[in-house]
Amino acid sequence: MRDLNETSVTDAVLEQMAGTPDERLREVMASLVRHLHDFARDVRLTPQEWLQAIGFLTQVGQACTPARQEFILLSDVLGLSALVNLMHDKTAIEQGTESSLLGPFYRQDAPDLALGETIAAKAPGHEFLVYGRVTDLHGKALPNASVQVWQTDEDGVYDLQKGRGETMDMRGNFRCDAAGRFHFRTVKPLGYLIPMDGPVGKLVHSQHRHGYRPAHIHFLVGAPGYRELVTALYLADDEHIETDTVFGVSNALVTSPRDEDPQAPMKGIPAIHYDFRLGIAAADEAGRVGADPSQIVAAH
Amino acid sequence: MRDLNETSVTDAVLEQMAGTPDERLREVMASLVRHLHDFARDVRLTPQEWLQAIGFLTQVGQACTPARQEFILLSDVLGLSALVNLMHDKTAIEQGTESSLLGPFYRQDAPDLALGETIAAKAPGHEFLVYGRVTDLHGKALPNASVQVWQTDEDGVYDLQKGRGETMDMRGNFRCDAAGRFHFRTVKPLGYLIPMDGPVGKLVHSQHRHGYRPAHIHFLVGAPGYRELVTALYLADDEHIETDTVFGVSNALVTSPRDEDPQAPMKGIPAIHYDFRLGIAAADEAGRVGADPSQIVAAH
Repeated sequence: MRDLNETSVTDAVLEQMAGTPDERLREVMASLVRHLHDFARDVRLTPQEWLQAIGFLTQVGQACTPARQEFILLSDVLGLSALVNLMHDKTAIEQGTESSLLGPFYRQDAPDLALGETIAAKAPGHEFLVYGRVTDLHGKALPNASVQVWQTDEDGVYDLQKGRGETMDMRGNFRCDAAGRFHFRTVKPLGYLIPMDGPVGKLVHSQHRHGYRPAHIHFLVGAPGYRELVTALYLADDEHIETDTVFGVSNALVTSPRDEDPQAPMKGIPAIHYDFRLGIAAADEAGRVGADPSQIVAAH
Repeated sequence: MRDLNETSVTDAVLEQMAGTPDERLREVMASLVRHLHDFARDVRLTPQEWLQAIGFLTQVGQACTPARQEFILLSDVLGLSALVNLMHDKTAIEQGTESSLLGPFYRQDAPDLALGETIAAKAPGHEFLVYGRVTDLHGKALPNASVQVWQTDEDGVYDLQKGRGETMDMRGNFRCDAAGRFHFRTVKPLGYLIPMDGPVGKLVHSQHRHGYRPAHIHFLVGAPGYRELVTALYLADDEHIETDTVFGVSNALVTSPRDEDPQAPMKGIPAIHYDFRLGIAAADEAGRVGADPSQIVAAH
């Protein structure tokens, strides 16, 4: 029998995991163990700190509900979600519109709406129009493309954050017309603090970070044979546009409503014009960096 | 505004965390983010795998109860608990008896027992005696030292794993006599599968690991002014003595009951003789690699 020391314990773990039949699981877990142990050695993690980490992760897990995904939030504030998203973008055969984070507030059961309808069923606010086209990289229209939209209301709150998440508002699923065009009305979203009442919020607070995301509208855009696009449009006038707590903003996604837009399909309200370009999909491609929280909790 | 790429996103996260007022938190989180991102880049973590990880961690958190600590179990099977323990040992001013893992089944509310009593209040089994002395490194007795003991029954089950954890058995807190001596009776523990019905068990199963810990008796030994000793005695005849799933065994902690022991304070039953040596404690020293699960869940 060998006695383990702080270096050889890593080899012992890798040895025990070496028989993993799934090659990818073996590779991922071996790398995870190496990096996890390197981290613990680099900082000389103490038993007390280890116990704090155990307590923290337990709290994060127990804060997850069908309406709240605290582990996605943790991944977001550590920049891991943005990193996975950026790596995923590089795997595209063709690079379409820049992607952004799905975030923890996507819902699969949003209502289907007709073009021109408003997603603000209940919430009041400064109305504006969003319109554009969904095309391939060469500008060819993708008829009947699916455009799912969700955002906060003018108070910076998602429906899922109200009560027990039984409210449904500020979301809608649209179908483009035969020319790949969509338009819908909404009210101006407000940038918002990530949920600060849970363990992740406490961490962000203890790091003296402001905790805000700049105002944005989420989009999930899809058409058969094309790579699903997870993105968001950010409003240029938000004070946190350069310091997003979850690292989701990129220049190409920053926009502003224009008061006068002769091209707009509805007049008399400000309009954002944005066209989405979808690359073609790889054969076995899958993956949104995010998910409906109810699907994650329900899965176990 | 800068557009982030898969390298610069790490710097952006570190920048946002740079204002953390607690120096140690800043150091630990910066290292964590670097290693976490390196891991994700090394394996080219995909959105699908990321989502599996989110789901897995959520399940681990939700499997935690006042009677079960699934995150400690995860730390154990990844060798992190053993590593933190080994590093902690090296911080000792004086190195006493080798330490081992506290594990997830320690309870603060175990009964106080008199020397010579059995910890097997209910469980049947092959009885034997455990006796010895608690001393400093030079063999000086530590009178009234505290010896807390817990183990599985002969079926390899902890009391906390029965029903909803309302059973109390196979544990006891003893006080040494004026010469630092202790003795108590117990029944032979059985090695056991770590809890395989949760997400960590599923992971271990998918890695084709046997999942067993060799039979052992946990000890938490303390005396004022001395470093608290968290350790365990392992039974030599266990078939998994060399392949502990949580990497807790070391040679010096492997023992066997002897049928004839003229030194033993009680005759007619097999006896294990083991003396514990405690080093002196550093001034601000704290830390067991483990905790009573009810204290972790209760804390949030």
